[in-house]
Amino acid sequence: MSETKRAVILLSGGLDSSTCLAIAREQGFERYAMSFRYGQKHELELAAAQRVADHIGVAEHRIVDIDLRAFGGSALTDDRFEVPKERSESEMESGIPITYVPARNTIFLSYALAWAEVLGAWDIFIGVNHIDWSGYPDCRPEFIDAFEKVANLATKASVQGEKKLTIHRPLIEMTKKEIIGKGLSLGVDYGMTTSCYDPATDGSACGSCDACLLRLKGFEENGMKDPAPYSEVISG
Amino acid sequence: MSETKRAVILLSGGLDSSTCLAIAREQGFERYAMSFRYGQKHELELAAAQRVADHIGVAEHRIVDIDLRAFGGSALTDDRFEVPKERSESEMESGIPITYVPARNTIFLSYALAWAEVLGAWDIFIGVNHIDWSGYPDCRPEFIDAFEKVANLATKASVQGEKKLTIHRPLIEMTKKEIIGKGLSLGVDYGMTTSCYDPATDGSACGSCDACLLRLKGFEENGMKDPAPYSEVISG
Repeated sequence: MSETKRAVILLSGGLDSSTCLAIAREQGFERYAMSFRYGQKHELELAAAQRVADHIGVAEHRIVDIDLRAFGGSALTDDRFEVPKERSESEMESGIPITYVPARNTIFLSYALAWAEVLGAWDIFIGVNHIDWSGYPDCRPEFIDAFEKVANLATKASVQGEKKLTIHRPLIEMTKKEIIGKGLSLGVDYGMTTSCYDPATDGSACGSCDACLLRLKGFEENGMKDPAPYSEVISG
Repeated sequence: MSETKRAVILLSGGLDSSTCLAIAREQGFERYAMSFRYGQKHELELAAAQRVADHIGVAEHRIVDIDLRAFGGSALTDDRFEVPKERSESEMESGIPITYVPARNTIFLSYALAWAEVLGAWDIFIGVNHIDWSGYPDCRPEFIDAFEKVANLATKASVQGEKKLTIHRPLIEMTKKEIIGKGLSLGVDYGMTTSCYDPATDGSACGSCDACLLRLKGFEENGMKDPAPYSEVISG
């Protein structure tokens, strides 16, 4: 008797997490998508997450309300900081950007772990990427490995010596170009996704924040135009 | 020039976390207490947390709203399960109780980490206890060690090679008797604290859930009466 395996997939509505959801589908998992309304300025990404969840197909999509704005400390959650624009690649590589949100992935993975435990799921997917975006500490392979250890000590199942919980990070060693190529082969409609940190009120992307610049480069390297809407006409 | 060191202390308003806050004071930390309104049936513990924070003294006490009821899976957050009563010690030691809340300490520590990072604090205190309460997987020393590793990979400081973040768990190898003795020596007023999972609407403790039974035993072993209010007259 074959049994459908459940997986919790962290889904922001961006390019990476949407590809990750498609990969979980390719691998035959029953998919439970989880998004967060965490006080991000770019809350419009949640509408994208819903579109993508409908498009790729999920058993359930849960949007969890948490308030990271209460802590601040990031250009994504704190009005005192501006989202940086038009940075060069060397500027992006020069340190941890102000868009880093303290402990965000740790908090997201903790919630995913809680849901996985209640669902009886042994698999969590996160679309972290280490190659084209090495600025965030909580996107590094060693961080994900360490959290996987926590996950396997934190839960009831870990005491009872049951199966091992796996944190899948299928994109971690891929370039943006490769991620887009993979997603296209799996039928992801990137026109539904948004990566922008500072979108216009109609949801169109700014085209000049770090996330937009990396994304646009990835499409350009695939020899195509990004199908997502931008506020201004983007060359390439 | 001496510098005041900040610490984030997880404070439920119970016996253990209140003692932990007093220990952080003894060690000279500037104290930032953090409590959670997580959908617990015993939300009255938050009033106790506020009393204790005022009594022991904190620079700030933050109560974070999170909804673990959305996941359920525990007698503390799910109305389908009853809080067990009058269990014997051997029953308590026989496995993970239904009062276990999936991934709760992982989530609490993640929030503490976020706040610590924004505050510039390098110390987090958690009142987990492994001796008189070994049923919860996320109270074990190996879990705390694993989370400490995560904390030291998750943050901006970890990339920048700054100081190491420490998760203090001063009670982990203490019996309830020893914890109470320590707290009394530090001036903790246990009459302000509540440990009960199923308090009456006036805040008085039931005297028969696991948490009450362990607590009552700890006071009895110190040769004294628990100063907290109980619904019924408790012998001993």
